[in-house]
Amino acid sequence: MLHVKTPEEVLALIECEFHSLGAAEQVCLVDAMGRCLAEDIAATEYVPDFDRSTVDGYAVRARDTFGCSDAIPAILPLQREVLMGEGAEFELNAEECVAVPTGGAVPRGADSVVMIEYTEDYGDGTIGIAKAAAPGQNMIFRGDDVYPGKVILRKGSVLSAQDIGALAAIGRVQVPVVKKLTVGVISTGDELVPPEAAPGPGQVRDVNSPMLEAMLTAFGAKVINYGIVVDDEALLSSKMTQAAAECDAVLISGGSSVGVKDAACRIIESMGRVLLHGIAIKPGKPTILGKAGVKPLVGLPGHPVAAFFVTKLFVLPLLDRLMGKKRERYTVTAKIAESVSANHGRAQYHCCRLERKDGQLIAYPIRGKSGLITTLAGSSGYFCIDRDCEGLPQSAGIQVTVSTGD
Amino acid sequence: MLHVKTPEEVLALIECEFHSLGAAEQVCLVDAMGRCLAEDIAATEYVPDFDRSTVDGYAVRARDTFGCSDAIPAILPLQREVLMGEGAEFELNAEECVAVPTGGAVPRGADSVVMIEYTEDYGDGTIGIAKAAAPGQNMIFRGDDVYPGKVILRKGSVLSAQDIGALAAIGRVQVPVVKKLTVGVISTGDELVPPEAAPGPGQVRDVNSPMLEAMLTAFGAKVINYGIVVDDEALLSSKMTQAAAECDAVLISGGSSVGVKDAACRIIESMGRVLLHGIAIKPGKPTILGKAGVKPLVGLPGHPVAAFFVTKLFVLPLLDRLMGKKRERYTVTAKIAESVSANHGRAQYHCCRLERKDGQLIAYPIRGKSGLITTLAGSSGYFCIDRDCEGLPQSAGIQVTVSTGD
Repeated sequence: MLHVKTPEEVLALIECEFHSLGAAEQVCLVDAMGRCLAEDIAATEYVPDFDRSTVDGYAVRARDTFGCSDAIPAILPLQREVLMGEGAEFELNAEECVAVPTGGAVPRGADSVVMIEYTEDYGDGTIGIAKAAAPGQNMIFRGDDVYPGKVILRKGSVLSAQDIGALAAIGRVQVPVVKKLTVGVISTGDELVPPEAAPGPGQVRDVNSPMLEAMLTAFGAKVINYGIVVDDEALLSSKMTQAAAECDAVLISGGSSVGVKDAACRIIESMGRVLLHGIAIKPGKPTILGKAGVKPLVGLPGHPVAAFFVTKLFVLPLLDRLMGKKRERYTVTAKIAESVSANHGRAQYHCCRLERKDGQLIAYPIRGKSGLITTLAGSSGYFCIDRDCEGLPQSAGIQVTVSTGD
Repeated sequence: MLHVKTPEEVLALIECEFHSLGAAEQVCLVDAMGRCLAEDIAATEYVPDFDRSTVDGYAVRARDTFGCSDAIPAILPLQREVLMGEGAEFELNAEECVAVPTGGAVPRGADSVVMIEYTEDYGDGTIGIAKAAAPGQNMIFRGDDVYPGKVILRKGSVLSAQDIGALAAIGRVQVPVVKKLTVGVISTGDELVPPEAAPGPGQVRDVNSPMLEAMLTAFGAKVINYGIVVDDEALLSSKMTQAAAECDAVLISGGSSVGVKDAACRIIESMGRVLLHGIAIKPGKPTILGKAGVKPLVGLPGHPVAAFFVTKLFVLPLLDRLMGKKRERYTVTAKIAESVSANHGRAQYHCCRLERKDGQLIAYPIRGKSGLITTLAGSSGYFCIDRDCEGLPQSAGIQVTVSTGD
């Protein structure tokens, strides 16, 4: 019999037992959104590749404007105009100026741009500059943004829209990303019927496989849903073996009867090794984690609420680990609307609804008997009461993990 | 000339000028993940449809156990056993018990279940009960979770994995969701080349259209990317008209030269109405919002960083509005690592990187000249310095909006 482990011990075990699978593929730029970067990305060229103006105005040598003012403008002949999208492959003459648009190229020799607002076109081929320019003013210099060799994104990051923008800027239109994991989902239980079926006496619909499929798909995995398998050890074993052959990880949920709980454990043992049996959280205690080769096999509780928390808290970090994905999970601060008592000795997780009142977030714990799926529906997120804590008084500050796709 | 509006005024204008388009479609359960619910969802049946045990044990009439203890167990004949997934369409005899598994059906007449841990099977057809049961104990009653007519999810919610679970529980396998919006994206600028091209002198790669396409796709829109259009008013006008005919909303970014800025405004005016020209934020001031019929036409700044903020702050809420989507955007509390000065009179947005130190989140503002796309790359999120604020001292508490898919 294995010891029940604390959440911290489970996460440490995952770090220790599982490692990045390392498989990568190239995808095109827009498809890289939300994917995990498989290697550091360094620029191979300068961005911009030329000195650029950040305003509409006149490129000058700053020293030619020193001392000028509204009263005594510096009067500089207009050497020429640079158009948008055109190079400026010439040298600015001393004591002259060149008209440049925002984003336009600035000629050699110019070290600053005076905004058009501070100038006057006298119409005789000269421009009056009413404000002295400081060197570097209103310019982006070649390579200010990136230069060859500069690492702009790190391996393991989950690519955001702004990262896609940065990749576009450096011309990286094929992006090396970690391959999607294939995760197998199996539900077991003689009482289960598929969601589309009408349950007969003593039957309920299978909640876990569609819920897990949705969660894992949003996480970015490919899901093979093996559907419902009856509580028969030989059948379960053969389905688990098939899933382990076809997938990178297998989740089996249910098996709530005593005999079958042991069966899941025996099957995982026969396929490889059981790493833990039981986690000190509520709900979610009867969880099994094992591995067959490098592949995790997870026995999730049958209760949908328990299966939900175990997947959020341990399975997704485990899948992150397999992908080498670096990801922070942030929480928001809220005040709890009513007191909640806790169970000694186990970290206790509660779903809640968040509402903003007078600029403050208020968390309403969703109460209900364990096993009620509606304690999840419509919730904004969840919070945890530590195992050492006897409960939370009304208005206590809590950290809420907000529901997102995964 | 229209007044520059504050962010609050812009959001109020969006509320006032745009409304839900109302188009809905049915999708299957797992595909409903992340979609916006088009109507309230009420249950049409009881879940569970029978009284259920939450433990492995014996269903009893609680009063038959009153007064029992370890020393003096109540001895009840085992009437029969209910198997998992089988109905219990019979009545429990008085002063007898029925074996039930976790999740199994409990017969009529039973009002509680005693956990197997507190019982002993004497092997002679009787069971010893060592702990008195309270009525209702260890049971979920018919309809405890949902009953016909109970609204479990509200119109406008973005469906999470747990909501998919709740829909599965009530057998709602076809889900009415709001149709995806089709959003057209146009980049304009004579200096722009596609990301896959090598920029010539004075040219830069188009960052905005792939960045916006990624952001809008993650938001849940279909994107038609019209690519780059040169700064020519007639061409732009014809492309905008085509996009407005094909899409629910059109974003045009760029047009940074003075003449073209006016062109975008004139084109939007000619297609419908300009609602605002200029927002009091930095970066992002030169933004145009208009409408043609019920369709928004947005002129975004050409600077990628400005286009990013305007899209996050105003375009996505506008698209939420068109979908009737109710969504909270939460922020996390962090301490700023270094002081940041601010511009008077405009709300100022900064990207930052978050790091956890001693359990506290530290925000490192990403500095750089405006227009550098790498000030976005790898950032964890962003924060705002209010227009009335002169800057933030080191270690000030700030609210960071964390980067997510959309």
